Amino acid sequence: MTEVEPELAAPAGTAPRFGAVEAGGTKFVCLVGTSPDDVVAKTRIPTGADPATTLAAVVRFFADSPAPAAVGIASFGPVELRPDHPHYGHITSTPKPGWRDVDLVGPIRSVLNVPVGFDTDVAGAALGEGRWGAAQGLGTFVYMTVGTGIGAAAVVGGRLAVGLGHAEMGHISVPRQAGDTYPGGCPYHGDCLEGMAAGGAIAARFGPPAEQLTGADLRQAVEWEAGYLAEGLRTFVYTIMPERIVIGGSVPQLPGLFPLVRAKLAATMAGYGALPEHAADDFVAPAGLGGMAGPAGALVLAENALRARG
Amino acid sequence: MTEVEPELAAPAGTAPRFGAVEAGGTKFVCLVGTSPDDVVAKTRIPTGADPATTLAAVVRFFADSPAPAAVGIASFGPVELRPDHPHYGHITSTPKPGWRDVDLVGPIRSVLNVPVGFDTDVAGAALGEGRWGAAQGLGTFVYMTVGTGIGAAAVVGGRLAVGLGHAEMGHISVPRQAGDTYPGGCPYHGDCLEGMAAGGAIAARFGPPAEQLTGADLRQAVEWEAGYLAEGLRTFVYTIMPERIVIGGSVPQLPGLFPLVRAKLAATMAGYGALPEHAADDFVAPAGLGGMAGPAGALVLAENALRARG
Repeated sequence: MTEVEPELAAPAGTAPRFGAVEAGGTKFVCLVGTSPDDVVAKTRIPTGADPATTLAAVVRFFADSPAPAAVGIASFGPVELRPDHPHYGHITSTPKPGWRDVDLVGPIRSVLNVPVGFDTDVAGAALGEGRWGAAQGLGTFVYMTVGTGIGAAAVVGGRLAVGLGHAEMGHISVPRQAGDTYPGGCPYHGDCLEGMAAGGAIAARFGPPAEQLTGADLRQAVEWEAGYLAEGLRTFVYTIMPERIVIGGSVPQLPGLFPLVRAKLAATMAGYGALPEHAADDFVAPAGLGGMAGPAGALVLAENALRARG
Repeated sequence: MTEVEPELAAPAGTAPRFGAVEAGGTKFVCLVGTSPDDVVAKTRIPTGADPATTLAAVVRFFADSPAPAAVGIASFGPVELRPDHPHYGHITSTPKPGWRDVDLVGPIRSVLNVPVGFDTDVAGAALGEGRWGAAQGLGTFVYMTVGTGIGAAAVVGGRLAVGLGHAEMGHISVPRQAGDTYPGGCPYHGDCLEGMAAGGAIAARFGPPAEQLTGADLRQAVEWEAGYLAEGLRTFVYTIMPERIVIGGSVPQLPGLFPLVRAKLAATMAGYGALPEHAADDFVAPAGLGGMAGPAGALVLAENALRARG
């Protein structure tokens, strides 16, 4: 007699139920469902100083919830993504106390005994936006998040682009904007994209954080922010030729930012390699899922893990 | 009774024979074979002012050669790569007299009646290096050529990365090297990677072309060239995370360039996202096929076209 998991035995057309973990530096968001609109259980677990305690709470949540057919984990990083690497599924060299070289996949897989998918939080958000958000139906797109840091992930030909590891697109170089003397906040590169355009760069230049700026300071902050993001986007366009670039995070909520980024991207491309698609308002689009992008992407990671086990 | 093409009916283990066209601005290189080491017919046809005459000569070459199972074309650009676009298979907005909006795929497919693959010359060279050259066996790599221009193509997860069109990686921005006052030679962006590091930029700074420089000028040229290429490579590493970057073309033959590019890449990455693989001597590797990379890649394009029809 063949045992089948209840989800796989569900009537045709009924999607299997998956588990999702968005592992963040301050909290783990865990849920069980078929989509962001069909969540049957959800919890938030503080990211404690002791990973074993946090992971035990995660496992307990899933044990107490309707059983998922697979679990996906979208984690803060850096993480090890190469399946044949002995530390696959680990957080690696994070500065976060206690969390260096911590295995996330192992404890969840061994207790729940289901396939477990694993990727970065940014890659997860990209998958979530691709399935249910602002990049639905696109084969090749870039998702970028701009907050305390800048991260981006590319989906190429329908799959997350992964080479030696996950991309670090926030750390590309960008030309300095006219009049900006801020040396840059990246401890490695100084004035890379993240160093010049992450949230901390605005606070370092003006004092208050972005959302508290007004008047001339706000106008100048938006002008520079749009300039740096547009330069980064030019590099994404020329290297990846995405069908769309989706931007999430807190900083892009600065008033008037998106139209200015679009105009400055057109200006810095200077017509070279420019296609009609680049001029569309939704070529550079705000993220559609907000805080649910990561957990939604973790559902996709779970689905992929189940399919890979096939 | 089923007609089968002779190549497909060949004994097991015998590769089918393909046709290859490397369409360049000065000549079309055409060949028939199974690999760069097994070429049964080859010719060079000058790129004339009248495309119809040039293409007729190409078709005649294949008609007079052992019949190929499919043909691949790796062309100078810009080209239209979207299969559903009415101008798919065309050279589009080239400044080359007479060659604007010229259909390359149509005439060859209609006369030879075989599947025809099509991509850029740079993408073709990338495929050739991936199959038989310096990137053999790698799933994700970047091929860059540095000559009169700079072009690059990425293979991601074993497939050419194509979004809205082909990449234009030569036109990413790079930080200016210390002491370099050259404004840059790109008519669109000025001091983009191509503007600062293509062959013309060296001649514009020093007078003689790169291969004629000596003494202090040569040392300075190599220093700056390595600096700009390393900055470009940092962007490729952070956006695509390739397993290797292969560099072809004339300019990289400057003496001592490769070791300096490797050292400067390590310096500009500053340890961030750096993996042991990045420190290997063959992470940044010279191209292996020389002038045969493009025609070899066209063989791969032909094979892919045959498989797609399959």
